[in-house]
Amino acid sequence: MVFIAFEGGDGAGKSTQVAALAAWLRERGQEVVVTREPGGTELGGRIRELLLHGGEVAPRAEALLFAADRAHHVATFVRPALERGAVVLTDRYVDSSVAYQGAGRDLQAAEIAGLSAWATGGLVPHLTALLDVAPETGRARRSCRVEDRMETEAEAFHARVRQGFLALAEAAPHRYLVLDAAQPPEVISAAVVARVGELLAGADPTLRTPASTSSSSTTAVAAPGPDPAESAAPTRDSAATSEHVAPSAPSSSGEVVGRSESRSGGA
Amino acid sequence: MVFIAFEGGDGAGKSTQVAALAAWLRERGQEVVVTREPGGTELGGRIRELLLHGGEVAPRAEALLFAADRAHHVATFVRPALERGAVVLTDRYVDSSVAYQGAGRDLQAAEIAGLSAWATGGLVPHLTALLDVAPETGRARRSCRVEDRMETEAEAFHARVRQGFLALAEAAPHRYLVLDAAQPPEVISAAVVARVGELLAGADPTLRTPASTSSSSTTAVAAPGPDPAESAAPTRDSAATSEHVAPSAPSSSGEVVGRSESRSGGA
Repeated sequence: MVFIAFEGGDGAGKSTQVAALAAWLRERGQEVVVTREPGGTELGGRIRELLLHGGEVAPRAEALLFAADRAHHVATFVRPALERGAVVLTDRYVDSSVAYQGAGRDLQAAEIAGLSAWATGGLVPHLTALLDVAPETGRARRSCRVEDRMETEAEAFHARVRQGFLALAEAAPHRYLVLDAAQPPEVISAAVVARVGELLAGADPTLRTPASTSSSSTTAVAAPGPDPAESAAPTRDSAATSEHVAPSAPSSSGEVVGRSESRSGGA
Repeated sequence: MVFIAFEGGDGAGKSTQVAALAAWLRERGQEVVVTREPGGTELGGRIRELLLHGGEVAPRAEALLFAADRAHHVATFVRPALERGAVVLTDRYVDSSVAYQGAGRDLQAAEIAGLSAWATGGLVPHLTALLDVAPETGRARRSCRVEDRMETEAEAFHARVRQGFLALAEAAPHRYLVLDAAQPPEVISAAVVARVGELLAGADPTLRTPASTSSSSTTAVAAPGPDPAESAAPTRDSAATSEHVAPSAPSSSGEVVGRSESRSGGA
C-alpha cells in the first residue's frame, strides 16, 4: 500500500526512527512490515555476510551483490507486502547504494541508480525520510559498536556519502523528508509521523504534483485535493528513478524538521 | 594475452576440451590459466553455492548474482592473467548467462548481455569455442552425475538454451568456433587446437575483419596478413558486446568441425 524508506549515514538513528514510526502506525491498526537492506531476506543475509565480512570484493561485484540482494528483497518480500495492503518501512534502500557506491567510490551514481532501477523493476518509495547526519555526529554515535568494513572507511568518504544523499533529496524534493539527525529523536519522529499521516490520508499534495520544481515542499502543504487511490500506488515506471541520479551537489535540503500540522491518522 | 571461452549446454564435454587445449598449450611453453564461471574465485565459489543449492532465487537476483561473480572473476583473476601474458581458458562466460537466463527464462537476452557487459567492463573473448550438443546427448552424458537445480530443468528449456548459444555464434561468426559435441573428443580437440594455433600466431584473418558478414569463416582462412599485436589485445569496447544480443534464432552454425590446416603453434 505505502512504501517508506529511511536513509542516512551510519549513526544517523534510522533504526530508532523506523521503530517509532512502526509503533505509531500499529497503534492506529495499520499492518506494518519492517525490513532493511542489505539482508532483508534469508538469501540477502547470506549476501550481506559476503559483503561486510568477506575479503576484498571488486567494486562492480560489490555493486552487483547489493543489487542482487535488493532484487530478491523487492520481488519476494516488499511487493507481496504492499500488494496485501501493508505499510512497508525499509531501513536503507536504493539511495544508500547510490550514495555509498556512487558518490563514495569508483563507480558513477548513474550506473548504480540504473542497476537498482533494473533490480527493483522501478519500484520507488512514496516517501524517503533522510536522516542527515554530520560525519562527526555519526562517528560519535557508532563508536560503541563493532566496526565493519564500511565503517572503517575514511572521514572524507562519509562526507561524500552525506552529499550524495542530499543531492538525491534535492533532485526530487516532493518524495523526500530531510531531517537533521542531531535533533532529539522525539522531535524527528514527530516530523516523520506528521508527514506519514498526510501520506496515508492521501492528503499530501506534494505526492500529486511530481512536476513541481519547488525546492521546499512546505509551501505546498495547504493545497487542496486529496486522492488516496492516486497516491497509494507505488511508482513503478522505471523512468521515474532517473530522478535518483543527482547531477550536482545540493545547496540546501528539500524540507525542514518540526512540522506538526494535519496529523490526520492512518487506517 | 589471449582469452578463450568454452561454451555449451550441460554434458557438452567442455571440461575435457579445456583440459586438452591447456595441455597442448603447455607443451609449447605457453603459460595457461584455466578457470570457470560461476565460481572461478573464492568469492565466486560462495556465490555459486547460493545459486545452485540455495532456496528459490528471484530471476533478477539470480542474474545479478551471476554478474557479480563475473565482475569479481574478471577484475581480480582474468585481467591480471591476461596482462602478464597468459592464455586464459574459461569454462563458461557471458554466453552461458545470455543463453540460460535470457533465452531460457523470464528475462530478455539483451538485459542479461547488458549486465554482463557492465560487469566485465566490456571484456570479450578473442575466441569462443561453442560445443553444440543436442539435448538428448547432453542428458545421457550427465545422467551419472548428481543433478543440481539447473540440470533438473525441463527438456524444452535445454532446447531453448541451445538455440540461444547458436544465435550468439551466428551474430559474430569471426569470434566463434562452433563444434558438434557428438564427435569424438579427439576430433573436437584437433579443431580447437588448429584454430587456437592460428590465433596465437596472429594468423587468423577472421579476427582482423570484425565487420565481415560471412556466415562461414572457413572461406577466409587462407587470407594473408598476420599481425600478432593487433589480434592479441582483448576487445574492451563495450559496444562490441552488443553482438552478443541475438535478434533471432540461427539457421546454421558459423564454422564446422574437422579443420586441421596451419597448426602453426603458440608461444
